[in-house]
Amino acid sequence: MTTAKGLEGIIIDSSEISKIDGAAGRLIYRGYDIHDLTSSLSFEEVAYLLWDGNLPNEEQLKKLNNHLVHQRAIPQNLQSAIRNLPATSNALDVLRTAISILGAEMPLKKPDIADAIAISAKIPTINAAFDRMRNGREPIEPRDDLSHAANYLYMLTGRNPDPVKVDALNKYLILLADHSMNSSTFTARVVASTWADAYSAVVAAICALKGPLHGGAPAPVLKMLQDIGTPERTEEWIRNELKSDRRLMGFGHRVYRTTDPRAQILKEIAEKSAPKNLIELAKRVEETGIRILQEYRPQRKLYANVEFYSAIVMHSVGLSPDLFTATFAASRSIGWTANILEQVAHNRLIRPEAEYTGPLNRKVVPIKAR
Amino acid sequence: MTTAKGLEGIIIDSSEISKIDGAAGRLIYRGYDIHDLTSSLSFEEVAYLLWDGNLPNEEQLKKLNNHLVHQRAIPQNLQSAIRNLPATSNALDVLRTAISILGAEMPLKKPDIADAIAISAKIPTINAAFDRMRNGREPIEPRDDLSHAANYLYMLTGRNPDPVKVDALNKYLILLADHSMNSSTFTARVVASTWADAYSAVVAAICALKGPLHGGAPAPVLKMLQDIGTPERTEEWIRNELKSDRRLMGFGHRVYRTTDPRAQILKEIAEKSAPKNLIELAKRVEETGIRILQEYRPQRKLYANVEFYSAIVMHSVGLSPDLFTATFAASRSIGWTANILEQVAHNRLIRPEAEYTGPLNRKVVPIKAR
Repeated sequence: MTTAKGLEGIIIDSSEISKIDGAAGRLIYRGYDIHDLTSSLSFEEVAYLLWDGNLPNEEQLKKLNNHLVHQRAIPQNLQSAIRNLPATSNALDVLRTAISILGAEMPLKKPDIADAIAISAKIPTINAAFDRMRNGREPIEPRDDLSHAANYLYMLTGRNPDPVKVDALNKYLILLADHSMNSSTFTARVVASTWADAYSAVVAAICALKGPLHGGAPAPVLKMLQDIGTPERTEEWIRNELKSDRRLMGFGHRVYRTTDPRAQILKEIAEKSAPKNLIELAKRVEETGIRILQEYRPQRKLYANVEFYSAIVMHSVGLSPDLFTATFAASRSIGWTANILEQVAHNRLIRPEAEYTGPLNRKVVPIKAR
Repeated sequence: MTTAKGLEGIIIDSSEISKIDGAAGRLIYRGYDIHDLTSSLSFEEVAYLLWDGNLPNEEQLKKLNNHLVHQRAIPQNLQSAIRNLPATSNALDVLRTAISILGAEMPLKKPDIADAIAISAKIPTINAAFDRMRNGREPIEPRDDLSHAANYLYMLTGRNPDPVKVDALNKYLILLADHSMNSSTFTARVVASTWADAYSAVVAAICALKGPLHGGAPAPVLKMLQDIGTPERTEEWIRNELKSDRRLMGFGHRVYRTTDPRAQILKEIAEKSAPKNLIELAKRVEETGIRILQEYRPQRKLYANVEFYSAIVMHSVGLSPDLFTATFAASRSIGWTANILEQVAHNRLIRPEAEYTGPLNRKVVPIKAR
């Protein structure tokens, strides 16, 4: 028996999907470095790669595109269900509910690539429909002549999206798509290991993504930047947070011991897509945060993590903060489903143990004697 | 680094909630043997025990009862949402969706006892409402003068329930309420470890419960008994299943190396509540199944597991097979929420690792060259 709270250092399985080299600050999908993947590929090509193991040729990509485009629309009853949720709902809760509703119409079966495509294709449509409805506008039907990233922005705004924003969102969607055995992907695998269906596994992954220690961080990062307001207020603001024992959002990661490569790439994207004053502020907060955190924990250097510049990129492409985590889900869905397919291909029920440290040998006494 | 596929033998944390002694065939909640708990207590008392750590006195129980009763009703918008789901939906998918909808109206906050009470109180109401609606009947409002078990049966049928059935269901609900680090409870803890809210953690647990390797087994057990039909057909039917490489539902458990104590107690309950011919058939299937499985795996004796007699008890109290897993959730919800509260009281993000065994150092080539 091995005891491992938090499962740190426990390898739950082999996987051919993604590799984090925490010491070198590298992230690899199926053998390709994340820098190469973001420099020239579309989200659709990376989806093919994660699901299939290889990059598609033109015909394979065309076929996948057709499937994805065909699966973008959401049924009328789902649109009504989204409309009936309170406008004040968290967008991720709406997405979780929507995928659950889609799953209620599906038979219990072994997850397959068709599930992966259907779920991944519909997430942007669900997010955009809710975002429009809560703002009193009608949802916009998906367009089949636009890429995944461009269509998402189109469904949010109804306008032809700016190519700089499309490129920024496309790169964001690739960068966040998979990250080895993170909590939400792990949750999806635990659920798939019980022979539950793909929808159940993805719903559970969305549940895990909601937590501020996992996918819930980007919106608080933006709020932090807005609270700080101007670069010269940075140091005082951060010191005050840490003195009050609050966690500084957007710094540190359990696995990386150097800069998260995704944070680097997102920073480059943000420099092209975000307003100049926001970028200047973000850079000041990044360098000040690193410096002050080092004073607090000299034995371990903390860096800005992926959430830090994610927040700025998502803000710069026009997403409201409440859509940040739901958009993270739009990206991570291809990684979740790739992991679900890998789990069920070589399954073993995931069931750890706990060490019981409670009392023993108690006797039930009648309630009047308690 | 330790590799443990399925996490077998890995202790993820200490817990004071329940203990399985697999070798001795014992199950303990908070120091009390499951035999003692089912012999005289109500589900409400056991809920108090799991959440609080001690059995309640009269005043404490009365207070909890009041809270539970007050939380039974579901809001009108949730009733409409359930009505709008296809009548052919799986009841567990409906429950998953309903808890997700309830969660969408709640703020993101640290799980607390009020969440545990609200969720556990509403599950029977949701299950009963869907069951009635899909059968073209109107849902029945909960009654505040009935116990948790009695009110569940009342909301399903609209009739004052038979005390033998209430007792059987009450015992079932206690027996299945917690079981150490099973897959759904573990899933709830993984989700809670990200600082997600209680509703997200319970939704995820429901997702894991759906799998036939976990909570999805009882309905297939009943189907098996109905397929076999008469005791004399048992041996041929089982041999045929195993020859065709199908899994025999209702036998074996990863942890127990002897009879599951819950199965024993459920068998006693079934003998009081189920029709005589069904009990006779079940006993024949149990003994024949054990004997034939031993021929296939002489090194390990397999026993009838908790699902086997769960199916018979749930059938005998009048639940349709599609409600079996959703009723399992009604029981396990108090264990899930107790575990969620324990997780957040001493939290550490649960995030294992995977061993990457895929390719390395691949270079992206232009699509025309692939």
